[in-house]
Amino acid sequence: MGIMLKKVHLLQSPEEERTDVYINGNRISAIGREPRGFSADETIDCSGKTAMPGFINCHTHAYMSLMRNYADDVPFATWLFDRILPIEDSLSLEEAYWGNLLSIAEMIRSGTTTFVDMQMFPRMAVKACADTGMRALITRGLVGSDRNDEGAKTRIAQAFDEMDYGKDIGAPVSFGLGPHAIYTCGEDLLRYVAELAHDKNLPVHLHLAETQKEFDDCMNEHGMSPAAYVDSLGLLDGEILLAHCVYLDDNDFSILARPHVHVVTNPASNMKLANGFAPVTRMLREGIHVALGTDSAASNNALNMFTEMRLLSMSQKGVTRDALALTAEETLRIATENGAAAIGREDLGSIEVGRTADLILIDEDCPSLRPLYNRKASLVYSASGSEVSDVMIDGKWVMRERHLKTIDEERVIYETEKIAAKYR
Amino acid sequence: MGIMLKKVHLLQSPEEERTDVYINGNRISAIGREPRGFSADETIDCSGKTAMPGFINCHTHAYMSLMRNYADDVPFATWLFDRILPIEDSLSLEEAYWGNLLSIAEMIRSGTTTFVDMQMFPRMAVKACADTGMRALITRGLVGSDRNDEGAKTRIAQAFDEMDYGKDIGAPVSFGLGPHAIYTCGEDLLRYVAELAHDKNLPVHLHLAETQKEFDDCMNEHGMSPAAYVDSLGLLDGEILLAHCVYLDDNDFSILARPHVHVVTNPASNMKLANGFAPVTRMLREGIHVALGTDSAASNNALNMFTEMRLLSMSQKGVTRDALALTAEETLRIATENGAAAIGREDLGSIEVGRTADLILIDEDCPSLRPLYNRKASLVYSASGSEVSDVMIDGKWVMRERHLKTIDEERVIYETEKIAAKYR
Repeated sequence: MGIMLKKVHLLQSPEEERTDVYINGNRISAIGREPRGFSADETIDCSGKTAMPGFINCHTHAYMSLMRNYADDVPFATWLFDRILPIEDSLSLEEAYWGNLLSIAEMIRSGTTTFVDMQMFPRMAVKACADTGMRALITRGLVGSDRNDEGAKTRIAQAFDEMDYGKDIGAPVSFGLGPHAIYTCGEDLLRYVAELAHDKNLPVHLHLAETQKEFDDCMNEHGMSPAAYVDSLGLLDGEILLAHCVYLDDNDFSILARPHVHVVTNPASNMKLANGFAPVTRMLREGIHVALGTDSAASNNALNMFTEMRLLSMSQKGVTRDALALTAEETLRIATENGAAAIGREDLGSIEVGRTADLILIDEDCPSLRPLYNRKASLVYSASGSEVSDVMIDGKWVMRERHLKTIDEERVIYETEKIAAKYR
Repeated sequence: MGIMLKKVHLLQSPEEERTDVYINGNRISAIGREPRGFSADETIDCSGKTAMPGFINCHTHAYMSLMRNYADDVPFATWLFDRILPIEDSLSLEEAYWGNLLSIAEMIRSGTTTFVDMQMFPRMAVKACADTGMRALITRGLVGSDRNDEGAKTRIAQAFDEMDYGKDIGAPVSFGLGPHAIYTCGEDLLRYVAELAHDKNLPVHLHLAETQKEFDDCMNEHGMSPAAYVDSLGLLDGEILLAHCVYLDDNDFSILARPHVHVVTNPASNMKLANGFAPVTRMLREGIHVALGTDSAASNNALNMFTEMRLLSMSQKGVTRDALALTAEETLRIATENGAAAIGREDLGSIEVGRTADLILIDEDCPSLRPLYNRKASLVYSASGSEVSDVMIDGKWVMRERHLKTIDEERVIYETEKIAAKYR
């Protein structure tokens, strides 16, 4: 299958320039000049479009869109323990499937082509990705005291089952382990996860240093910061995605500055739950790898990487009192290339010859983006997400001219409202 | 002209409830029950829509969309003096007209029905409002040393001419005086503006306490804070809209807590230009009237009240470390009712019988808003602005099913790009 994007603008080009992009199968096979033997099954006029790599949303919980706007304007502990967890515990697998689909619909519409999930219903996430063509790194949420904890053992066994299931149905997903947090996983369980991840060559995905309480409790209990604590357990020796990292002490910055450690910042969730602002500008200065996530729609309350980029850049400028903090260019890189690096997929995150064709088209004919002096600034500071017209994952269109091709949105809304009716 | 909004949801109703809204001429004539003698020229099926009052964007500079994304990631002084003002000084009236139109297109698309403008090209703003049906309070930007300053005298004379012009062409606008700031207007000019505003019964619109430098300079020069200084000049004795108010000392809160003083907060602009976060939560607690504005597209870089509401609520929760700060309900009120109060138009800002019909319809069939547990939270925390399907101003549709009825968008984009080409 050959697709030609004719006269498209690429972000790496000068503002006035347009070129042609040739996609063969799931690869970007050429830019600018038709490759030998290329045959276009589809030629798209992109003379009013900008192409950019699809976003990599590096931290969410996709099934939780079912709890969107269910518990707002309440403190963190009330939100989590009194409102969110009771619903989570009562969801059926089928309900979780529809929740995952609702999230995927929203993410595709706003230009996300890959998400990293901490899941309580991994099989349903795998199935939702297989059904829609969405790409994901799915990590099984784990809680428990130690490696002999029955709940944890069951979930770990399940996690390996899901990997087989994913392979069987050809889902575009990879897998990891998702110990929930240092306050819901005991020391021995965390050590075990580190060992298992090393033995099986799996990435780990963990909430870390999200709240002041978590930081203070860790200092009291272990005599060290959350970052130092997980380092002491061996968790930072392998590939790991650390969501949040709002509360770091001076020493933590050097602990986290390692090539295989990826901090995933979630500005909307941190602000909305009143946890504050992660020191992202300082992280970058100290050589820490930073990617971007939305967290779930229960704490954001959107899965929109455009509004998330905007919030990230603006909040960092506001907090540091430096208008040059997190430029548009840096912010875009965090939301794309850095995300690709965080999931070990260097073939994603940019539009270059030989890369995998995960890309989105932006409709330039929106008054909100004009004039187009500087498209990177337009995308970070002006766009709201609705400018995305087309989305391609693995060389296949999942949205064309704002129409979702692999999801029946009406059905998804119907099913999710039916579920929500139970909790009203 | 009678319009019936059939089975619409209103934000003041329980989530499950739908009702009918009857619009006669430019008024909401009844809700729920057809008024005697009503004849519907148009009946709109709103069974998938939520209606809410149109937003009142209480601080912008509409012509400045021409400089959108022209000067980003630079410090405030560079932005204003080296990049923005030189373009502003070189714009022709016709160019400014197209800039105003571009802003109005964007504002209507994202649900704004009234804007408060500090204009350098008031005639063009008046004309743009007359041509599009957009409502505005237009205040002539003023700078100068004293009441005999030639530039200031010319502009003030112009301001009164524009009022006549606006009346002549039946533009849906009212007028005020817009002294730019305490660092661009001398003491005597500010006193004169206060007198003139009192004599002619005009509101005043002023940038105040936007930067640390402005605060420090005012303390050095006048021995008091910016808020105390403008109070000492008589400016706070009449109706006034004060944009920004980021830097306030303890005493300023009581100075500003007066019924006719309206602080207009602009969170995106304050964050983006690294001026920080206005103490909005404390203002509200101390009885200050607060409205919301986007500032111009050169410092935001969008004129979208949905993303602005989200940023306001989230940044206040983040800064105060209080998840209950600026709830969705309070934030919506600030963006609608408080805006109406700020411009002395108590007939706007809510959907109630007898009010003027400035309202918008939200398309509920967007995955990003679902499930609809709590529409206020959905609108503040989840919406991005593209959910707005229809916009009515003064009883007339200016957008229907996402199609602008009074603006040729293609032409506006063509003309504004032609202008922008000069500055590339």
